[in-house]
Amino acid sequence: MAFKIGLLGLGTVGTGTADILFNPDGRHPLLQNITISQVGVKSLEKKRNIDLPSEILTTDLEAIVTNPEIDIVVELIGGLEPARSLILKAIAHGKHVVTANKAVIARYGGEIFAAANEAKVYVLSEAAVGGGIPIVEPLKQSLGANRLENIIGIVNGTTNYILTEMTEKGSDFGQVLKVAQDLGYAEADPTADVEGYDAADKIAILASLAFGCLVKREDVYCEGITKITSSDINYAEKLGFVIKLLAIAHKVQSTTETQLQLRVHPTFVPTSHPLANVNGVNNAILVEGSPLGQVMFYGPGAGSGPTASAVVADIMNIVGVLNTDKTGDNLDSLLSCSPQGQGQISPIEEVFSRFYARFLCADVPGVIGHLGTAFGENNVSLESVVQIGFQGDLAEIVVVTHHVREGNFREAIAEIRSLNAIKNIPSIIRVL
Amino acid sequence: MAFKIGLLGLGTVGTGTADILFNPDGRHPLLQNITISQVGVKSLEKKRNIDLPSEILTTDLEAIVTNPEIDIVVELIGGLEPARSLILKAIAHGKHVVTANKAVIARYGGEIFAAANEAKVYVLSEAAVGGGIPIVEPLKQSLGANRLENIIGIVNGTTNYILTEMTEKGSDFGQVLKVAQDLGYAEADPTADVEGYDAADKIAILASLAFGCLVKREDVYCEGITKITSSDINYAEKLGFVIKLLAIAHKVQSTTETQLQLRVHPTFVPTSHPLANVNGVNNAILVEGSPLGQVMFYGPGAGSGPTASAVVADIMNIVGVLNTDKTGDNLDSLLSCSPQGQGQISPIEEVFSRFYARFLCADVPGVIGHLGTAFGENNVSLESVVQIGFQGDLAEIVVVTHHVREGNFREAIAEIRSLNAIKNIPSIIRVL
Repeated sequence: MAFKIGLLGLGTVGTGTADILFNPDGRHPLLQNITISQVGVKSLEKKRNIDLPSEILTTDLEAIVTNPEIDIVVELIGGLEPARSLILKAIAHGKHVVTANKAVIARYGGEIFAAANEAKVYVLSEAAVGGGIPIVEPLKQSLGANRLENIIGIVNGTTNYILTEMTEKGSDFGQVLKVAQDLGYAEADPTADVEGYDAADKIAILASLAFGCLVKREDVYCEGITKITSSDINYAEKLGFVIKLLAIAHKVQSTTETQLQLRVHPTFVPTSHPLANVNGVNNAILVEGSPLGQVMFYGPGAGSGPTASAVVADIMNIVGVLNTDKTGDNLDSLLSCSPQGQGQISPIEEVFSRFYARFLCADVPGVIGHLGTAFGENNVSLESVVQIGFQGDLAEIVVVTHHVREGNFREAIAEIRSLNAIKNIPSIIRVL
Repeated sequence: MAFKIGLLGLGTVGTGTADILFNPDGRHPLLQNITISQVGVKSLEKKRNIDLPSEILTTDLEAIVTNPEIDIVVELIGGLEPARSLILKAIAHGKHVVTANKAVIARYGGEIFAAANEAKVYVLSEAAVGGGIPIVEPLKQSLGANRLENIIGIVNGTTNYILTEMTEKGSDFGQVLKVAQDLGYAEADPTADVEGYDAADKIAILASLAFGCLVKREDVYCEGITKITSSDINYAEKLGFVIKLLAIAHKVQSTTETQLQLRVHPTFVPTSHPLANVNGVNNAILVEGSPLGQVMFYGPGAGSGPTASAVVADIMNIVGVLNTDKTGDNLDSLLSCSPQGQGQISPIEEVFSRFYARFLCADVPGVIGHLGTAFGENNVSLESVVQIGFQGDLAEIVVVTHHVREGNFREAIAEIRSLNAIKNIPSIIRVL
């Protein structure tokens, strides 16, 4: 059976996708039966890195999602609108949809999957997280036998590149960001990456897949890497850690309720941890569950080829299942998404973490005592308090806590800030 | 729709599988519709770690694979026979099959998949390689858009545990093997693991999936780890490597033909390589292809829970696709296996590798010159030749070559062995 694709967008990933579909030799034989019928672009005149028959290009994206000949719409234009509306219109016209759009799926996944289930079509989004790394499909299919408890990912290549360079070269954030922009690893406006918003989109998607419920993107607690200094990286190294921007989804199951903890923040990761060696623009996602234990998926988190590999995998998955003489009355419930209700999110104050904090204080006797008292009175138990040295005439003290409730830690910090001897708290970073 | 499972075998993995299927809460909702109808065991009297209704246990395995009520047969008895015959009989009776049996799939995959395609049933084997790590399904589904070129895996937990312990504790092979046996990580007869046969089964399976052709298990070149000494591990470390037992499948595509290289051998792996940090009983499989680049899958390669997770994933995959109101006329060609012809295998002599070799020789002038000449005359170009020190009155020389044809290297070694000054060649290990 032959299947026709309508491609929306011919940027980096669109070009990579078209390149695979027009050159099926040496790949899975299923690709022989898949053709691109139409490609929606902004401008017909633009010079492109790929030779496509000019008659398949159009600027009328609405015409693609409503074209009765097209079986699968592949949305690669990115951004919230018109991507969301085009996806919904494609679904309404009975098209299956493949998308790489993390922002749309993270924010409108509930609406989109409900519409897809109603219309009995698939909406697949492997490329939305982890580029070429298979992670969405394994969460939906290969790991479904487990009770999943944790997902910990390095899911943003830009920030991982920046932190890796800062670690390896001792450079400052600003310097490395500039290099990353010159190399095309960071955008001119790097906000979405460096503030962790992109990682937050991705962990919202992974959490809803792993835990089978809707997750509101705005419920993800989010801290970026802009305040990380080379001092922090040095101290991390001395203590046996590297700093990574982690996206974490954790399910806390009690007898009475289920709570989800969702957060993105820079984190001290022990050098022996599998995520500690994930460097440069690579991504990795660690999944923990029972009875599985821990598995990790590692690879290129972005780029034309890897992301296109994931897009085409989704197309093939749809074609594979449609080829089974499907009547269309039921979807394969492993491929489709039917989140059950809204996940209950713990406020960040309720999350338990270890913390590293660095203090600059007047070198007066008893300052470590004051710190210890403030922490102790707030039930924050300490693993270590070390005076590292001096910055000018200020003593530099580094504290690492045990696992403590974040609300308690914050109250202790507020109290410490009001101490006369404390001049500055340059960094507070969570510890894995 | 409800599905009935017939389970063959109630050992470690069988017990883990039953435990998941009898406790579906908190896992994928699809599991609610899957029940175990019959469990085939050797003895009804044996004490077990799981409470099953006694009426579902039977010693008549034939009755299970021919039971008209059963939809999916799960083969977990292992070994070649009666596993192969039971699988074939189940297929002949229209059952889908899930198996964790690497030995059967590596040797009889061609026969089994042909029978399954003829009978229009699925035979899935995620648990045959990498325990709980999803690798079979990603190769079949998520990575199918790629032209795959390389698979490099640490796929045997026993040998990886032994090599890790030898590296971390400086112990000898024999000592660590004994500890591994005491801990249950190695069997009383460790041959299949330590000689690399188990890894060879697994790479034969992965190669046939990745390259879409049949691979004969006996075509896999196989060297075990029994000759690895703590000296080799020390030299590896000094040169910036760790020693791992790698299973490698490589596709060499020329304009005129396609050749596969399949091998299992101890290998010097650079410490910066993603596989270098895979320690203990963990497994990892690295897959390279175009346009994907490199992805790696990491996790527990064995054990009851992880392996059962993979077994149940296969069951769910079959149930998911059967739920789509399938007429049964066509299989999902991503889930099924249809290898195209027999892969052409390169003899090991034609494979290009780097080599590390250690020589013990009489401390006479010119010995390095003789070595260099013998290698040079056989077109083996050297990266380094270093006299490391002495063992007794013998000089110890370590050579690392560039990428050279193995046949040439072997001829050079044969020549060197005949040199008067060369007393012994304690180790020859390939370098990644």
